[in-house]
Amino acid sequence: MHHSNSPDASIPDFTTDVVVVGAGPAGLFQLFQLGLQGLACHVLEALPHPGGQCSQLYADKPIYDIPALLRVTGHELSEQLHQQLAPFAIHWHWGQTLEAIEEDGAGHWLVHTSQGHAIACKAVVLALGVGAFVARKPKLEHLDALLAEGRQAFLQSHDRQAAVAGQQVVVFGGDEAAVAKAIELAQSGAALAPARVSLLHRRDVFKADETALAQLNALREQGRIQVEIGQLQALNLHRETALQSLHILSPDGQSQTVPADVLLVYQGISPKLGALADWQLALEAKHILVNPATQATNRPGIYAVGDIASYPGKRKLIASAFHEAIMAAFAIAEQLQGKSPLTLYTTTHTVLLERLGQEPVAKA
Amino acid sequence: MHHSNSPDASIPDFTTDVVVVGAGPAGLFQLFQLGLQGLACHVLEALPHPGGQCSQLYADKPIYDIPALLRVTGHELSEQLHQQLAPFAIHWHWGQTLEAIEEDGAGHWLVHTSQGHAIACKAVVLALGVGAFVARKPKLEHLDALLAEGRQAFLQSHDRQAAVAGQQVVVFGGDEAAVAKAIELAQSGAALAPARVSLLHRRDVFKADETALAQLNALREQGRIQVEIGQLQALNLHRETALQSLHILSPDGQSQTVPADVLLVYQGISPKLGALADWQLALEAKHILVNPATQATNRPGIYAVGDIASYPGKRKLIASAFHEAIMAAFAIAEQLQGKSPLTLYTTTHTVLLERLGQEPVAKA
Repeated sequence: MHHSNSPDASIPDFTTDVVVVGAGPAGLFQLFQLGLQGLACHVLEALPHPGGQCSQLYADKPIYDIPALLRVTGHELSEQLHQQLAPFAIHWHWGQTLEAIEEDGAGHWLVHTSQGHAIACKAVVLALGVGAFVARKPKLEHLDALLAEGRQAFLQSHDRQAAVAGQQVVVFGGDEAAVAKAIELAQSGAALAPARVSLLHRRDVFKADETALAQLNALREQGRIQVEIGQLQALNLHRETALQSLHILSPDGQSQTVPADVLLVYQGISPKLGALADWQLALEAKHILVNPATQATNRPGIYAVGDIASYPGKRKLIASAFHEAIMAAFAIAEQLQGKSPLTLYTTTHTVLLERLGQEPVAKA
Repeated sequence: MHHSNSPDASIPDFTTDVVVVGAGPAGLFQLFQLGLQGLACHVLEALPHPGGQCSQLYADKPIYDIPALLRVTGHELSEQLHQQLAPFAIHWHWGQTLEAIEEDGAGHWLVHTSQGHAIACKAVVLALGVGAFVARKPKLEHLDALLAEGRQAFLQSHDRQAAVAGQQVVVFGGDEAAVAKAIELAQSGAALAPARVSLLHRRDVFKADETALAQLNALREQGRIQVEIGQLQALNLHRETALQSLHILSPDGQSQTVPADVLLVYQGISPKLGALADWQLALEAKHILVNPATQATNRPGIYAVGDIASYPGKRKLIASAFHEAIMAAFAIAEQLQGKSPLTLYTTTHTVLLERLGQEPVAKA
């Protein structure tokens, strides 16, 4: 585990006011509130897009209890919270989780990301939700090296970076997302089309809606998707560097080889809380204890909001996370400026309207 | 001051679970959260419509810091919060303020409204904002009796009830709302048109936008609006019951008489907090102290949310009021049911979906 890309680990790659960890609804509205306070922010998000639980667990399901939104899907809510951030210059670190938080000795924090970046900041807001949504992967020799290299193997959450044209591509999985990916690849336009699309799953049963299953069957009959059934046993590499094929064990005990230039791992995405226990934070039943007046944890300069935070009466509801983001933003502004900020209103206050990129309202 | 329309003041006119006082954003979302908890509610609102400050102070002005709403006017926000209540059978008491809260001796409360109704309930939520928005009125003999009778004199907030066809109507005021009302009356269709429309103001200067002033001048020149300038001195009544004319004193000291069958009082609307100090509530700088875990005041069964409530770190922001409504709803449900309710989700939970009038979602 390396802590920084810098030659000297004590020199940060970035310096900012606040690092927000997590870009679910709590983290997104936290960024908005910090923006209103005029603070510069970096944000780490394990997924390659905003939304957190909203985008992973109920992207297309309706939510009815967001104030003034009669019905909104998780995806729509994430999008609207993300759009609300347009006025602010936020530095996004997609596909990165929090590796460690280190005191720099001068009362500031050094946040280390999973991709080895170090960000110096004055405050950290943990908006972790139920944890970082990370793609599950099998334990196989060479796989981590190939994933790190980012050319021949990709996790579900990062496969947009995969160059598949003319390649023999294997989608490894059996759920809705895996089926959809195989169909998408098989239907790619000529210039982008893979040479071969395989869908590898441990048994010949796929979890997807009827339309997708019908499409899969049609493409399978046309020979445009090769369905391979079996356990993935090993990755076969040429000269230990170039992926060539997969070694699988079929249900009847036969060994098989599936040609593969590119492997897309679709084994589902699940939340992972990470090293919470290592950060010297006061916890209660796996949640971070905060003061509800400030959302401050027991470590000065570290705050927590949303589902990960706990205080008397806490309810894990999105509308409560929004309020917590307000409390944290005011507390952080006070920490950084040495005095409690006034409560200003976006309807009338010139400074806020400027920060929002809006014209000040003429006085009536 | 009478406390109840009932012959016996100890018999309530209504019995319910919760009375919410105030239908601004805090009160509206409070009703939504209580509805999700399956509780029956009555609500008192001084205005004849929902919105509170949102509808009175910034109806047409944009608000930018409501989560997931990039830009919403006060009127739009009120409307959306109001629409969100459609699934619930709420009993609305428009145009009524809180007169008194009385213990019934059995641990319940008797809420007395300004119109003399008594509502028995188990909990009261004060969502008073900066106070009830009530129409200002001059001190004149007979006026209160005429307003109470509701046929010949009306306050601005209730003038929709006025029958003006064929009547000699006086609009008493000089601001935007007064000018707009006079224009509206003068332009009424034949069947609804008053016999005469007067606009009475202390000086010949009206506060309104250019378009409205141009319309007023045109209607004035056409003799469709009579502008009368002077101080309103007295109401002249026939046999002490029938309004006949107004006695005014013009700027040059002359007495004048303006014919009047119907008087519409347009002297502005301003917030009035009422008898807060009389209710034995713990206060701090004119705000009600609450426990932020429950929004409970010092009196068991009485809660406060929104701008009137105070706790450590309190910020008078709409998004915080929404969270406070959640805390109060859970605390009230616990008070009434004797145990803390589970946190359920509107996306998936059958009971909540039923309460919202939605079809339960099929399991994937």
